[in-house]
Amino acid sequence: MKIFKLPAFLFAITVSAGLLSVDAVASEPSVLPSWNDSTSRQDIINFVDAVTDKSSPGFVAPAERIAVFDNDGTLWSEKPAYFQLLFAIDRVKVMAADHPEWKTTQPFKAVLENDIDALADTGEKGLLELVMATHANMTTDEFTRIVTNWLAAAKHPRFKRPYNELVYQPMLEVLAYLRANDFKTFIVSGGGIEFMRPWVEAVYGIPPEQVVGSSIKTKFEVRDGRPVLVRLPELNFIDDKEGKPVGINQHIGRRPIAAFGNSDGDLQMLQWTAAGEGKRLMVLVHHTDAEREWAYDKDSHVGRLDKALVEAGANGWTVIDMKKDWKTIYPH
Amino acid sequence: MKIFKLPAFLFAITVSAGLLSVDAVASEPSVLPSWNDSTSRQDIINFVDAVTDKSSPGFVAPAERIAVFDNDGTLWSEKPAYFQLLFAIDRVKVMAADHPEWKTTQPFKAVLENDIDALADTGEKGLLELVMATHANMTTDEFTRIVTNWLAAAKHPRFKRPYNELVYQPMLEVLAYLRANDFKTFIVSGGGIEFMRPWVEAVYGIPPEQVVGSSIKTKFEVRDGRPVLVRLPELNFIDDKEGKPVGINQHIGRRPIAAFGNSDGDLQMLQWTAAGEGKRLMVLVHHTDAEREWAYDKDSHVGRLDKALVEAGANGWTVIDMKKDWKTIYPH
Repeated sequence: MKIFKLPAFLFAITVSAGLLSVDAVASEPSVLPSWNDSTSRQDIINFVDAVTDKSSPGFVAPAERIAVFDNDGTLWSEKPAYFQLLFAIDRVKVMAADHPEWKTTQPFKAVLENDIDALADTGEKGLLELVMATHANMTTDEFTRIVTNWLAAAKHPRFKRPYNELVYQPMLEVLAYLRANDFKTFIVSGGGIEFMRPWVEAVYGIPPEQVVGSSIKTKFEVRDGRPVLVRLPELNFIDDKEGKPVGINQHIGRRPIAAFGNSDGDLQMLQWTAAGEGKRLMVLVHHTDAEREWAYDKDSHVGRLDKALVEAGANGWTVIDMKKDWKTIYPH
Repeated sequence: MKIFKLPAFLFAITVSAGLLSVDAVASEPSVLPSWNDSTSRQDIINFVDAVTDKSSPGFVAPAERIAVFDNDGTLWSEKPAYFQLLFAIDRVKVMAADHPEWKTTQPFKAVLENDIDALADTGEKGLLELVMATHANMTTDEFTRIVTNWLAAAKHPRFKRPYNELVYQPMLEVLAYLRANDFKTFIVSGGGIEFMRPWVEAVYGIPPEQVVGSSIKTKFEVRDGRPVLVRLPELNFIDDKEGKPVGINQHIGRRPIAAFGNSDGDLQMLQWTAAGEGKRLMVLVHHTDAEREWAYDKDSHVGRLDKALVEAGANGWTVIDMKKDWKTIYPH
């Protein structure tokens, strides 16, 4: 096991000199420092110890150390609604000047009138129209700029901070800890792949090629002698529920040995991870902290956690109790 | 510039001691040893020098050093037909015992009678049927085993060797040389993504998560309490021509700075690579060696090279003359 932030050679010297037992290391605060000394923290450390110890029967070669993370509700918050939906709503308001017809057409009318009930009434069809109107009919480069500019300016309604500051400090530490132990960390999110890529490298240390997500189709075109990729108003792939193992296979082509989620949308990803040979780590973030973040599970429309929590209990998967297990929530 | 196989610290010492000038390094046979001292070899070395030299205006940060390689005809041979088609033909012959109807149904009848003209007459529709009959209706794990077993047993008709020994030694050296200089190397092939993944890591050093290719759809199912991904007889994505930049964007999410191809199917990938900012390397492998491999370009049905060769000439892209530039073709 390598210790996050403790140079490997120093650790090796320390251990070989018998100055530090492995048990002592596990409760060493330099590993996952924003975590209380909880079962969930210990599960993560025990797993990493087992798969990185060459003398352990659970040893896994570095190339096979694939860890996947849901994004919404697992790496950053998802309330009062998925941040990408809030982005789409903001975009409709900006774009409305060029679309006078939106004043009288749903789902745009509901958005412009801040009528959340009416928006909800438009259902999946309305949501899809909202996404296509705000996410398609521009080049991939233009969309990247739009997302980047929105993130730089928009503020979360409750915390009054940029959305990409509402990421979980304890999970940033898990990402770094796994990478320090030669894991490759991937995002596998129901969110849009191109909505995440512009910012996740700076925030999570996850490069664009390690992001799996939902997508619309794109088309190669040469415009004024310059090749571009145009985003089309047509669904390509929904990376949620049964789609997550499909997306993992399509993009990664190996089965992960560790998976982190927070909702029923992550259940199949956890099942797929659990079904592989050898040591596995399946983790659910349970939102239990109404004061510092939000408390919700089976009755929530956003990030519903019901079946996956039952299955976690039945299979001994790790469940993070956000309120009890995390010393801090956000980096700020 | 790091030298392939020369440890970095040794190189640093050698250079800092003034024992080796950079020009001397470029013609040093330890770099790309199977290449003659050609313009194409020099183009590759000059490019790597420029993007890895921090004092050069062309310097590119390691994370952005993405290089993409076509597979058929660029990393391994593609004659007398794409090896994946030869796989499908072999599979039809194995599976025919369970499909008596194939004796009288095209395209299977043509395959079973070794009637290449009749097979060609079935056109794209026939080819698609052949692919679906041999590539779908099994789990992803089963397909991996089928490909692995085929590669272990099948022999190329001309060279009497396993297909994955018909890879180009000079290109293996380019892959290793780029990786030694902190590039991430990706395959971007019209071939099937799941047909390549079982063997490309051992042969090219390219892990499954860095393979982009054509695909059929898969579906998550729980069979006998065990989750599986079932391969469906339905096209998902064709990673060829205009599809290559789309596949690159979908999987990698960054624009490559170097691209290697050999046919018109690679043209859009090279255009997409060329259109980025800063130093770029676009390379075509021109098959000019009828004796050691094959000689073909604009009149070939497999790996036709016509428009891309014209565009290479017009834009100063690098064209490898296989006969003149490569000392050896295959590793054996």
